[in-house]
Order: sequence, then C-alpha cells, then structure tokens
Amino acid sequence: MKWSQTHLYTLKEAPSDADILSQQLFVRAGLIKKLAPGIFTFGPVGLRALRKFEGIIREELEKRGLIEVLMPMVHPKELWEETGRWTKMGEGLLKFKNRNGQWFCLGATHEEAITDYVRYELQSYRDLPKNFFQIQTKYRDELRPRFGLMRGREFIMKDAYSFDLDKPSALKSYQIMYDAYKAIFDRLKVEYRIVEADAGSIGGSLTHEFQLIADAGEDALMVSDVSDFAANREVCPAIDTNPVKLTSNQESGAPVIPFFEEFATPNLKSILDLETSYPDLKPLLVKTLFFKEDKPEAKIFAVVLRGQDEVNPIKLKNVFGFSQEPIWATDQEVVRVTGVEPGSCGPLGLNIDIYLDNGVTGLPSVVVGANKKGYHLKNVVLGRDFKATAIGDYRMAKSGDQDPKNPSGRLSAVRGIEVGHVFYLGTQYSEKMNARYLTKDQKSQTIEMGCYGIGVSRTIQAVIEQCHDKDGMIWPMAISPFLVHICVLDVKEKALLNLAESLEKSLLSFGVDTLIDDRDERPGVKFKDADLLGFPLRITLGKKGFDKGVAEFVTRKNQNKIEVPLAQMIEKAIEVLKEIEK
Amino acid sequence: MKWSQTHLYTLKEAPSDADILSQQLFVRAGLIKKLAPGIFTFGPVGLRALRKFEGIIREELEKRGLIEVLMPMVHPKELWEETGRWTKMGEGLLKFKNRNGQWFCLGATHEEAITDYVRYELQSYRDLPKNFFQIQTKYRDELRPRFGLMRGREFIMKDAYSFDLDKPSALKSYQIMYDAYKAIFDRLKVEYRIVEADAGSIGGSLTHEFQLIADAGEDALMVSDVSDFAANREVCPAIDTNPVKLTSNQESGAPVIPFFEEFATPNLKSILDLETSYPDLKPLLVKTLFFKEDKPEAKIFAVVLRGQDEVNPIKLKNVFGFSQEPIWATDQEVVRVTGVEPGSCGPLGLNIDIYLDNGVTGLPSVVVGANKKGYHLKNVVLGRDFKATAIGDYRMAKSGDQDPKNPSGRLSAVRGIEVGHVFYLGTQYSEKMNARYLTKDQKSQTIEMGCYGIGVSRTIQAVIEQCHDKDGMIWPMAISPFLVHICVLDVKEKALLNLAESLEKSLLSFGVDTLIDDRDERPGVKFKDADLLGFPLRITLGKKGFDKGVAEFVTRKNQNKIEVPLAQMIEKAIEVLKEIEK
Repeated sequence: MKWSQTHLYTLKEAPSDADILSQQLFVRAGLIKKLAPGIFTFGPVGLRALRKFEGIIREELEKRGLIEVLMPMVHPKELWEETGRWTKMGEGLLKFKNRNGQWFCLGATHEEAITDYVRYELQSYRDLPKNFFQIQTKYRDELRPRFGLMRGREFIMKDAYSFDLDKPSALKSYQIMYDAYKAIFDRLKVEYRIVEADAGSIGGSLTHEFQLIADAGEDALMVSDVSDFAANREVCPAIDTNPVKLTSNQESGAPVIPFFEEFATPNLKSILDLETSYPDLKPLLVKTLFFKEDKPEAKIFAVVLRGQDEVNPIKLKNVFGFSQEPIWATDQEVVRVTGVEPGSCGPLGLNIDIYLDNGVTGLPSVVVGANKKGYHLKNVVLGRDFKATAIGDYRMAKSGDQDPKNPSGRLSAVRGIEVGHVFYLGTQYSEKMNARYLTKDQKSQTIEMGCYGIGVSRTIQAVIEQCHDKDGMIWPMAISPFLVHICVLDVKEKALLNLAESLEKSLLSFGVDTLIDDRDERPGVKFKDADLLGFPLRITLGKKGFDKGVAEFVTRKNQNKIEVPLAQMIEKAIEVLKEIEK
Repeated sequence: MKWSQTHLYTLKEAPSDADILSQQLFVRAGLIKKLAPGIFTFGPVGLRALRKFEGIIREELEKRGLIEVLMPMVHPKELWEETGRWTKMGEGLLKFKNRNGQWFCLGATHEEAITDYVRYELQSYRDLPKNFFQIQTKYRDELRPRFGLMRGREFIMKDAYSFDLDKPSALKSYQIMYDAYKAIFDRLKVEYRIVEADAGSIGGSLTHEFQLIADAGEDALMVSDVSDFAANREVCPAIDTNPVKLTSNQESGAPVIPFFEEFATPNLKSILDLETSYPDLKPLLVKTLFFKEDKPEAKIFAVVLRGQDEVNPIKLKNVFGFSQEPIWATDQEVVRVTGVEPGSCGPLGLNIDIYLDNGVTGLPSVVVGANKKGYHLKNVVLGRDFKATAIGDYRMAKSGDQDPKNPSGRLSAVRGIEVGHVFYLGTQYSEKMNARYLTKDQKSQTIEMGCYGIGVSRTIQAVIEQCHDKDGMIWPMAISPFLVHICVLDVKEKALLNLAESLEKSLLSFGVDTLIDDRDERPGVKFKDADLLGFPLRITLGKKGFDKGVAEFVTRKNQNKIEVPLAQMIEKAIEVLKEIEK
C-alpha cells in the first residue's frame, strides 16, 4: 500500500491527555484518534493490527472447535435482572430508556445474552458440550477513562462461553481455553505471565489472568525467578524465606520468655516511630489492625501481623467469604473495642475475634500495643498471653518471598496489563437463568458454564507498551500492520517507484505486506516516521544506492543496517524477517 | 463443518412475531435469534452469510482505493450539535446520559464522526480526494421494529464517505461508488434496480437507491420494461401514454366548447360517485385538492388533477422547496377559501395559488366542483375559465405510464427493499463542521462530500425475501453460508462418515465449503432441513447408494436430481456449482 493512497499522518507531539507511552505512540502515528474520552476511531493502520490479532484469535479458537456467533450490543433490562446484575454491575453498566420507555443497557459482557441464546436449544445431554465465541464491541461506562485503548469506554473483546454437562467436563473446556490463550499470546512473542487471580465480580472459583508484562501495567504481580509461578499480588501466598534473626537470649534454645511488661511509648504511634526509637525490637514489632465487613451492624475484628507486613484485604474477604473487601473500623469503633485510640492498641484482653497472620507465629515473643494510651507491651507470647481465633495468611506477598511452587524460587514484583482472562463459572448463571438439560436417564440438570475473555483492542496497545524504544513502536511480526516499510527517497525517479511497486508485489506473493512511503519528503522525516510506526523491516531505496545497485535494509528492533544487492532483495527480506521472528 | 460440531437447530414453526417469510426462514433455521424486538444474535450459519457478504463489499471497495477505518458506536452530543442533527434526527437517534451526566448517542450514521476524524488532517489540496469506509454496528431506535433484520434497531452497515476538492471531483467519487455498488450487487446474482430517490433527511441533490426486488419490499418502485429506468414512485415522472378518448364533438377538430354550465350533483362527493352517475364525463373529471406547508400560518394552495390520478406530496415538497411534505388543509380551511365543503370545490373564482397537474392540460374541457354545495361545472376550459399559477407534474406515476428514458418503454409498479444508497452531499456537513482545505494558491475552500451506505445485515435477509420457495431458502452462491450440504443417511456406517469427511476436505481445496449433516435422524428430516437451509448443492450419501457406488446430487434451486459415481463426486460437484453460478 502506498502512503499517498491511504490515510496516514504522524504528529510530532502527543496530545496532553495521552497518559502513557503506548497511547502517545498510537495517537502520534494515527493508529487511533479520540472521538470522546475513552472512545476512539481506528485509522487504517491501527485497524490492520487489530484485524491481524483477531485473525490469530479466530484461528486458534476454531482449531479447538469453538463456534463463532455475533451477539447484540444492546440488551434488554429483563435479561440482566434474571441474574441480578442489572443492579449488581453498578454504574459501569450503561443503562438507557428507549423511545418507548423500555430500559436497555450496552453490553459490557455477555453471560446473560449467550445463556439466553442457548437455553432453549441446549436441551439434551447430546447437545453438550458447546463453546461459543464472538469478537464484538463492548461498552463500559468508565468513570475516568485513561491509557487510550487500555482503559477505554468502548472496546473490542473476544468473549467465549462454554456449556458443559458437569464440572469435570467444564474443567476440560477451561483447560482447552487456557491452552488456546497460551497459543494466542505465544504467537505474539511478547513477555506475558499466566497468573492466579481473584475472581472479582464475575465470580467462580477457578480463574487465571493472562498478563502482559509492562511497567505501566495497572496490576501488581508476583512472579517467580525459577518456575512459571505468577500471581496477582492480591492473592499471592506469602511465604517467608528469611527467618527472623533473634537476639542472644532466644538463641540459647530454651524459650525463657519473661512475663510481658509494659513500657512507655509516648508519641510513638506508628511502627516506624517504634522502630526508630527501639531498633533492637524491630523484628518483634507486631501491629493490630481493626476491620469489619462492609455491611450494617457488622462485628469488629482484629488482624495481627508483623510491623513490616501489609494486610491483604482480598485474602480477608476470601477467607471470611465476604462479598466485598472488609473496611477499616473507625477510630471511635477502635476505642469502643480496645478502650484506646489507634497507635497503642494490642490483642491482649480483647473481646473480639483475633486473626493472626502466620508471619507472626515464628516469633518467640512480640511487642504489641498495651491498649493504654502511650504504652506498649514487650515479651508478649502467643498462646500464653493472648489467643488467636485463627491463624492464617492475611498479608501481602512481597519481593524476596518464596515461590509457592518451587522452594528454591524467589518472588519479585512486576507490573502487568491484563489482556486475557479465563473463568470457571459453575452454575451461577445457568441456575438463575434456568439453563438446564436432560441427562441420559431423563433427569433435569443445570448446565455448567465457563467464560473467557481477551481484550482485543487493549492487547494491541498493551503490546506496544512492552515493545517500544525512544523512537517509537516495535511491532511483533504477528500483528504488525505491515511487515516491510519501503522508504523511497527520490520519488521523482520513476524507476525507484517502479522498483518499490514490483518489490511490494513480489513480497505479497510470500504473504509479506508492505507500506511504500512515496511522499515527497526529506529522508530524515521518512526515517523518523518509519521508526515511529515500527514495522519489523525497513527497506530504503534511494537514487545513490540504486546507481550502485543496492538497497539498505534496517531491522527496526536493533537498527541493524545492511546493504543488499537489488537483485537479492526479496530472498534477503524473507531471510531477515525469519530471523526477526525467531 | 459437521452439524454435530456447530450450533444448528431448525424449528418447524416460525414464532408469531415473524412478519415476513425471509424472517420466518431465518428464525426457523437458527440464522438469527431475537434478543429483544429488532435486536438479534447471529448464529454460526447466519454469521457465515454475513461475513461472505462483508468480504465481497471489502474486496470491491478496496479494489477502488477506499480506505477502511472503524469508528465508534457511541458519539458525544457536541459532535451532532455541530450539524444540528442532535435535534433534527428526532427520536430515532438514541440518546443517553453517561454516569458523569454527559450526553451521548448511539451512531445511526457517521457523517459527523468521519468529518471530525478527517478535518484536522485533510488540510491541503494534496490530501484530497479520500474515500473511507467501515463495516460497523449501528443503532436506530425504531418505534416499531419489524421484518427481522430488514427493519431492526441494531444493524450492521457498510458506510462510506468521500472527501473531494470540488464538485466535479465529488461526482467522480460518486460514480466510483455507484459502480462499486453495481459490482457488489451483481455478484449476488439477484434481481435489483438502481433508482432515483428522494434525498430525505440526509439531504443532497444527487442520489440513487439500490433496490432488491421482492413482493414484501417496503418501497414502491416504477420500473421500465425496456430500459434500466427505475424510480421510487414518490419521485417518478408521470408521463401519459394513452391520450384521453374524446367524445364526438371534440373530434371534429374545431374546439367549440360552449360556456361552462352548472349541473346539480346532490350527494355526489367523490370522483367515484360522479363516475358512476355520469360515465360519459369520466375522462373529463378533475379534482381540486387543498394543501398547506407544515408550519404555522402557512398559506392554503390548490392542486388540480385528473380524477383517476393521485397527488404526489413529495413532488409538491420538492417543487416548492418545503422541508417537509405539505399537509392537507382542514375542512374549515377549505370552506374559508372556497366557501363550500370538500366534495363540491373547484378552481374557479379562487383567490389562492392553483397548481395544475400537466395530466389535465390535454383535456379540451373539464368537470370541476362549482364551489356551491351539491353542484359541479362542466365545459370548463383551462385558461378561459380559470388560470393556473403554475403547471407541472404533481401526480404519482402509475403502471402503464411512459418510460421517461425510452418512449417505447412502459412502467410497471414493483416493490423493492432498499439495500444500498449513494448520496452526493456537497458541503452541507463540511460547511457546518468547518472541514476545509487550502488550495494550491493558498485559498481556504470547503471540502465536498458524498456518503454511501449498504445495509449489510439487511441485505442477507432481503436476498432470501427474493430467493426462496415453499420449502425454504435458496441461497445465491456468493453468500451462501455453505456451498454444499452433505446428508449422511446412515451415520452408524463409519465408511460413509469417512467418505463425507474426505469429500469435505477435497472440496475445500477448491474453495468449496461444506456442511455435513451427521445427525442420527431420518432421511426425511435431513432433506427437509437441507431444503430449509437452502445451500446450492445437496449430496446424499446413503448405504444403498454406497453399495452401488453412487451418491445423489440435488440442486436446491430446481430440485434437479442426478446419480453420481462416488469416484466422480468432486469434479461433478464443481461442475454443478459452476452451472448454478451461471
């Protein structure tokens, strides 16, 4: 395709509302253009990347027997009321009345729509399993859309939904999708991790996220340096690797801990204050935090954990089976249950449930608040001086923690962009929507479901958030809008343009698509734009080289330059592209 | 593809809300399924037809240099206010407030969005012409959605927008699209007509509709029996072919018309009443109708036309440059200007403008109301007894009228389904949205525009509204979901299934896609479903035939049956398909 025959333009400056680099690059290269906050038009070049990625997804899913359908974007209220999500989804679900006064919403996800689609036809065990997918435009009414396509309002998703006879079969469908997603993201040749995640509002008990690694990612992940273990920090098990160095009297072997004693800590309220004043006690400092479930008249409970640890509200939510993360108790509530304001609170003598993080259990004695203003207690021994209601993993994992899968591995924190998600749903939707089938012996049984998403528009930008340098984008081969970028330097030389055109034609016969920059612009402008657009291979055809019988090949990723005889351009281009693809 | 591996089901009965045959067939074969009124899910087979048609459109447009983009479905109010269409589009434009209280609408068309997309980048004469298209989901809040995909709320359109330097260039772009549409609909091999149409609310002065001929069509068309002339009945010129047979005294040559005289016509109010009582006067009966522009304090005017003719409000609107069709004057208003109630009104002595249809001018004398209750006048002569403000074509064309393009042609009335539309827009949007460019000599000039639509989802159903029989659909090759339907009659015979699979594979290598009905069902059920689904060629593989070494080929369209030796199935299938394609 010729530059002059498509709609391509580049901007020197990114607009001020472009938050992250990939968004800036997308806008500067005209891949997308904002129509409204979080709402974008795809230009011809952006659309090519999108369509290539859609093609990969379609191929991998059809190969695995998935059935493509296309569901509507506008859904009636009645449907979403069947599952209770009309209200449960909150304000992110965009609702409106039509001219007849009936309520509808813009589909943000399609569990309801697909279940309605199949519930009358999937009637017998013979009709199962079935696994459907669609590639379709969705809308989520983001309060603050940002990061371009990565947190937009209108976005393109591939969503899939499996319907199975029973749980074992549903887990098989889950595994098929897990493998399909691996195959899809492997083909992009980008760095990604599959992480265990919190199921969030969609629910379900088995779920994995596919996270593309990038510094600007919204998700905090813990990944292992030796195994493929990766988890969302929110649900990552916390396992110590460095036992606390104890002071001499504990090292003797005999646990002779004297009775706990009070000591004055005026104005020392935070762990940091205590550490600074009592550096010796640092490893023994323990904090007591107060929470309650997020509902009226909920009971206050305490969580006790080491000073340097961070409480993990998602773990608390999951352990206690709350529907939401617990919320902090107010200062007044803390006073009511401890008799003292936060800063001097401790677990001794409390009349409420006490949940002890397992990081504390290794400590022979601990330092805690005395429930008396300006005082703490030391030589406090768990079991002797206070009892825990339960002991568990209530803290955030952190860098240096042990890999739960491989004891020799260590975790480190990275940032990720969620590009795919697989969920085992069980019967939570099919039950409510009465999607049932008759077994071989004519018993009515609820269908088991799974749902699976890939953020299609999000992924193409996320890839660039990972793959770029100071000059612009560096597209992976699989979804690069074009594979070859031909810069014709002297466009008034008809012979050069002819050569470019015949090169394009030959490359196309090998499945290699080409953009020809046929603008009457300076070489510097063309090279800058080629770097910005970031297609894998740039071929420069100039008058000087032409007279010498050579072209210049530049690999975008490493800016490797070689001179190639004109007669060998095609075979060399194929060779270089194969090299890049490795 | 195997029946058992996709999601295919057929219904004996169409749902009661399916209004027309094509919709009933689509629903019965599971091609679409209603989610809400006017909102449908495409099943896997329906989606295949859709995608094939999209592929044809894409091919023909890209071949002609159009640039594909993808615009959003959600548009901000501010954009539509620039052209005044936020209010002008009326309630069909679905509007909503987002969670931040900002107004948006669901795009029903994209003139505003595309003009915004290009107005900052198309700055110089060097950037023009450009012609963009997208294939995208739109929404129109139909008051009473009906006819399935043909008048749905959510629908898929191909819309295109051209941007040009000046009118001659814009008309060239128009011609390119006109030719592209011809190529697209020619490939479907269906009966369609290109008609001159009224520009309606989109505006513009040059416009053609592509109308697929079908009895259930919503549009009344006049088509010629000899030329390619076709027009929407609303704008079709009305040209008489049969001059009125006059009575003897007029035939003498000398126009001796006595002075007009009153005659009593008690209780004869309608033309039909008069015809019945005075059959001799029938060809001379003329009616006088009263209208006014649809706005406050508009003047009443009269339209005079032959008794058997029908007034054409669209022609009146266009002649007078009204924004809407004129409305009928009330009985009170008629009394005010004529002194008498409708039924006895005539053009004589009126103080208002009188517009005379040119069908009247051929009559030597006419019969009109006397503006006196229960009386009419005969021997009334135009020019002598009353004067017309203007004479023109104000009537509806009718069957038997003369082809305006070819005097030997006769028009007949048919029904059409509008599947495509091309508009020359001029500067009406670019002016309001300030889309301008700099000419070679640095003058600022408004960009010329055109817009072009194809109802993608509508067309695939419209095609079936034309192509079906009592047993089901008859797909044209170009968009048939599958080309071959293999019925395996004895699915427990492994050899038969194997044969079907290898046949599918061989056919695919020729680009022929196949559905294998591998259900354990009676032959009658399978044949019925094959007829309903309507793919061009059915191949039946049964045990009996297999033992004899033959298969049965049935052409869907004419139910032609032949026996084909198993070894010749592939070449014969290709041959038969080529025959059907002719």
